[in-house]
Amino acid sequence: MQNLASEFLIRPGIAYLNFGAFGACPRPIFERYQQYQLELEQEPAQFMQVNGPQYLAQSRKALATYLNCDADDIVYITNPSYGLNIIAKSLQLQAGDEILTTNLEYGASDKAWNYYCKKSGAIYKRQSLRLPLESKEDFIAQFFAGLTANTKLIFLSHITSSTGLRFPVEEICAIAREKGIISFVDGAHGPGQVPVALQKIQADIYTGACHKWMMTPKGSSFLYIQKELQHLFDPLMISWGYDPAFTAGKSFIEYHQQQGTRDFSAFLTIPTAIDFMKKHDWVNVAAHYRKLTQQNAPVFCELLQTKPLAPLTDDFIGQLCSAEIKTSEPEKLQRHLFENYQVEIPVMRHGDKIFMRYSLNAFNSQDDLDRLFAAITDIKKNTNLIES
Amino acid sequence: MQNLASEFLIRPGIAYLNFGAFGACPRPIFERYQQYQLELEQEPAQFMQVNGPQYLAQSRKALATYLNCDADDIVYITNPSYGLNIIAKSLQLQAGDEILTTNLEYGASDKAWNYYCKKSGAIYKRQSLRLPLESKEDFIAQFFAGLTANTKLIFLSHITSSTGLRFPVEEICAIAREKGIISFVDGAHGPGQVPVALQKIQADIYTGACHKWMMTPKGSSFLYIQKELQHLFDPLMISWGYDPAFTAGKSFIEYHQQQGTRDFSAFLTIPTAIDFMKKHDWVNVAAHYRKLTQQNAPVFCELLQTKPLAPLTDDFIGQLCSAEIKTSEPEKLQRHLFENYQVEIPVMRHGDKIFMRYSLNAFNSQDDLDRLFAAITDIKKNTNLIES
Repeated sequence: MQNLASEFLIRPGIAYLNFGAFGACPRPIFERYQQYQLELEQEPAQFMQVNGPQYLAQSRKALATYLNCDADDIVYITNPSYGLNIIAKSLQLQAGDEILTTNLEYGASDKAWNYYCKKSGAIYKRQSLRLPLESKEDFIAQFFAGLTANTKLIFLSHITSSTGLRFPVEEICAIAREKGIISFVDGAHGPGQVPVALQKIQADIYTGACHKWMMTPKGSSFLYIQKELQHLFDPLMISWGYDPAFTAGKSFIEYHQQQGTRDFSAFLTIPTAIDFMKKHDWVNVAAHYRKLTQQNAPVFCELLQTKPLAPLTDDFIGQLCSAEIKTSEPEKLQRHLFENYQVEIPVMRHGDKIFMRYSLNAFNSQDDLDRLFAAITDIKKNTNLIES
Repeated sequence: MQNLASEFLIRPGIAYLNFGAFGACPRPIFERYQQYQLELEQEPAQFMQVNGPQYLAQSRKALATYLNCDADDIVYITNPSYGLNIIAKSLQLQAGDEILTTNLEYGASDKAWNYYCKKSGAIYKRQSLRLPLESKEDFIAQFFAGLTANTKLIFLSHITSSTGLRFPVEEICAIAREKGIISFVDGAHGPGQVPVALQKIQADIYTGACHKWMMTPKGSSFLYIQKELQHLFDPLMISWGYDPAFTAGKSFIEYHQQQGTRDFSAFLTIPTAIDFMKKHDWVNVAAHYRKLTQQNAPVFCELLQTKPLAPLTDDFIGQLCSAEIKTSEPEKLQRHLFENYQVEIPVMRHGDKIFMRYSLNAFNSQDDLDRLFAAITDIKKNTNLIES
């Protein structure tokens, strides 16, 4: 496996183990991005009104092919939280309605759901999952134990953020469909890390980031809503695209996407990102780094005297791996790792636990993980930042 | 007055008379923009979590000085429509409440207000203004004729879009204050075209674009809310910054600005834009082009057999000038002007009228207007696109 570090812009000298947070954009995608911005400034009116919208439609088409869905069913949004807000705002929750989710979701998602549930008297039901997860079946049983007659929507991550766990979304969505409950998958960490074929997953709603594992510049994400449900959701921002006389299909795009003046160049780079992944045989790249992620997990778990959060298989672990770490000062530990060892890795609070999460992508190598290992060993020995 | 065309990126050969639509970013500001984006990609986690927020705070401070307000009272938003949506969504309109506005507001603003008023049973009262406007006093009298005991908020443009008219917002806000009505000014065309000293205007709420007359890259705007009212307005997007335990001041910023992953580089260029304007003595540049705008107005009005929409003075006309034009195919006429004469100028519908609007900035010269004049003369003579 050829290391692709030279294709990325990440500053040399840093063991950058935090791809998961904000992605990282390879040079050719970044250059295309800035070219679009230059084209905009060379004739703003033509770009914003004539050429830009055409590029946008082409980009959406390329993304739809990549995601295996109809191009009329996805709109570009800034990030998955934006998509969640569109859904939660318009869901018309009633007092007593329940949103079934897990206790391992992204903090900003919890904030948004709590806000809209509090307003309406609905319940945001965070089903507690026993860690380590044992099997898909175990997960499904634990999750659906929270189901009641009031469950209106099921919300869960494709791959979680602080714990880095892949959830069996296809199975969960199938069960939801059977029961007539809307399914909504947060795919912030999905596309580019694992295959996302929307016609196979069959979630009613799927929001995903392109600026993480698809490696586009920041602020580039999408929201998929299946046709029958599109009419339910008003734009978060009412602007030129809004028309009270809503009709499904093409209007769905205008409705949510025409938001007045903004730089939408990040959306336009998606075809370049898809080409980049094709050129470098990304299915193999992802498989290689998934393997590296899984292989290293037992080593770090031993070092931190903890256990993997799930079986170390493709069912649960992709290119993100979290391990519980005992520290009372996670922010300080993270800063210490960066400043003293040039290791960029998040140390995050989730509930009453702290997790250290490494993520690997094409610019990483075993050396980065070895540097992390040496740093943790050193910190354990010479400071009290990590408890044993 | 030195022509600054070489500082801009606009393609030579085009008479670009549509600065008003999307601004145009000078080279040094654009280069700073793309440098920030590069810095982001060289170490995404440090930029997004450590350096970026510091730059953002510095930028907000510079903008606050420029606008003469407290840096804790402005938040960065994508565009003024976004600001309007924040306000309209959280205003808690009741059935019968009235929003007093004019019939010359921006179309997307009308759409947003109509949406929220329809939801609540409130009334969006578009006060009809007789054109041409005669005087400030005349405007104020006509506008406030729409005031009732139910008027909850007054909304008006600092400078209108399709008609390019400067409104006496200082006087209007003073009267609103006296009557205890919230005042909200849409300054999409304000800052950079006319002085915007928020402590002088004393609007309760002011939203402005930096990507138009302040010449930053697209997607860079601000929302000012005076301290006493900040607690009323929830973020449009609930994300990391949201905290149900809201307190005014610093929280206001986090609340609306922390929206998860996006490229906020456009916000960071504001100090560079302010420096650029200082360096080139922008007060004089604006005065020069305002004068050029006003001087040419009678010529075009005569050509189009119409009258100026207001007295041709600084009270009403800045660097935008609209004239009514008789055409049944405005979109086709606009395209024709661009394709056959390389004149970029908007021909816009507003209500049952059509307006042609030229806007002038530092890359323009009398030659551009002369080319427009020749083009219109030619089109009148040789086509039926303009009725006489």
